[in-house]
Amino acid sequence: MPADSPADGLPRVGVGVDVHPFAPGRPMWVAGLHWPQESVGLSGHSDGDVAAHACCDAILTAAGLGDLGAQIGTSDPVWAGASGVALLTEMAGRVRSAGWRIGNVSVQVVGVRPRMAARRAEAEGVLSEACGAPVSVAAKTTDGLGFTGRGEGLAAFATALVVPA
Amino acid sequence: MPADSPADGLPRVGVGVDVHPFAPGRPMWVAGLHWPQESVGLSGHSDGDVAAHACCDAILTAAGLGDLGAQIGTSDPVWAGASGVALLTEMAGRVRSAGWRIGNVSVQVVGVRPRMAARRAEAEGVLSEACGAPVSVAAKTTDGLGFTGRGEGLAAFATALVVPA
Amino acid sequence: MPADSPADGLPRVGVGVDVHPFAPGRPMWVAGLHWPQESVGLSGHSDGDVAAHACCDAILTAAGLGDLGAQIGTSDPVWAGASGVALLTEMAGRVRSAGWRIGNVSVQVVGVRPRMAARRAEAEGVLSEACGAPVSVAAKTTDGLGFTGRGEGLAAFATALVVPA
Repeated sequence: MPADSPADGLPRVGVGVDVHPFAPGRPMWVAGLHWPQESVGLSGHSDGDVAAHACCDAILTAAGLGDLGAQIGTSDPVWAGASGVALLTEMAGRVRSAGWRIGNVSVQVVGVRPRMAARRAEAEGVLSEACGAPVSVAAKTTDGLGFTGRGEGLAAFATALVVPA
Repeated sequence: MPADSPADGLPRVGVGVDVHPFAPGRPMWVAGLHWPQESVGLSGHSDGDVAAHACCDAILTAAGLGDLGAQIGTSDPVWAGASGVALLTEMAGRVRSAGWRIGNVSVQVVGVRPRMAARRAEAEGVLSEACGAPVSVAAKTTDGLGFTGRGEGLAAFATALVVPA
Repeated sequence: MPADSPADGLPRVGVGVDVHPFAPGRPMWVAGLHWPQESVGLSGHSDGDVAAHACCDAILTAAGLGDLGAQIGTSDPVWAGASGVALLTEMAGRVRSAGWRIGNVSVQVVGVRPRMAARRAEAEGVLSEACGAPVSVAAKTTDGLGFTGRGEGLAAFATALVVPA
């Protein structure tokens, strides 16, 4: 019963969690969008887009294809500085190549910035285009609690559903 | 490919995360229940019911309807002090009005209080009634780790499945 | 509308979150595997395997069967020191006995150790065997943030899909 066999015909669900610290002097990219008014960005090998990365892991785990680190490695120079949208586009293609159709993805961004409400629909458009399937975006603060509440970084939690193509 | 189109006939999954700090002098409402023996409640614009709020975001993201903040705003006076059950009832209605049937919702509450085990079935009954679909409730402590372990507040993590009506 | 009725024929999704602190002098068991090179393990009534426990709660909530605490209790001597794999095997059996087929489970382990990448496939094999269904395993660090980033413990987040048998 390999984790990557679509033989049983059932839909499958995946999970993705990502966290990146804020880093001064980097552009802020979250949920596939550039946030030019933010004075900090997110650190990481790529652009640090926690929402896009969580979506990647959600579709990959749903399809039994491991995780983002297994697919590209965190030190692969090809993907150094890669945008979250580029990674999601690539991973969605790999999921489809493995015989799956992506049903949908939902992701919730947790943290104090950026304030996503005004651009939620725009983010959904960009991530849905990258994924080739509907992506829902939600956002939440933690009222001062934890590293997200202290403004040290962002977290994102995603789930996805795929079906055999 | 709008995120809110049920045209492809597939089930969709959603995610919801919520966090609220404990606040002295407020009644404790969690998972749709009042916990009269607790000396603290949860702060927030509404009753702070993290479980009900996470369920709201899970069904809303599954249906491509944004998040609780997008639906009602965190400063809307109509919903000031609203109960989590009232919010979940309203959001479940909006999800159905958008053409979706709610399959089920699962939520896990993370924190040191209240001790939910003895009233888990009661909570499931209240939330299922609000949602118009089965809601499962789980609970967990974090053995002293993080803000939930230090007793600073509660977190909840939910997932939901909806299908075109 | 009891949470444990499979009568509507729809697939159902579940969620599971688990957290355990690192504890010196205990063997490290994570994702169904022993990690003999680690100098610490995870504390807990059982072996502290956060990944296996999160999988348990994900399938139990999907099936409307409560959570691991409700099924076995955290002080039940029968399960003292039980392995995560034994617990997952038992809970998967209870889910099937209640009339459900387990479609799949995905779990993401969050923390600094063990470094799971090299043994991800092995972990998926062991957990899939225990679950009787494909289990995907992902891993992630939090770049120094939160209790997972400070190396105080491990967290795991899981989701599962079940269908009426």
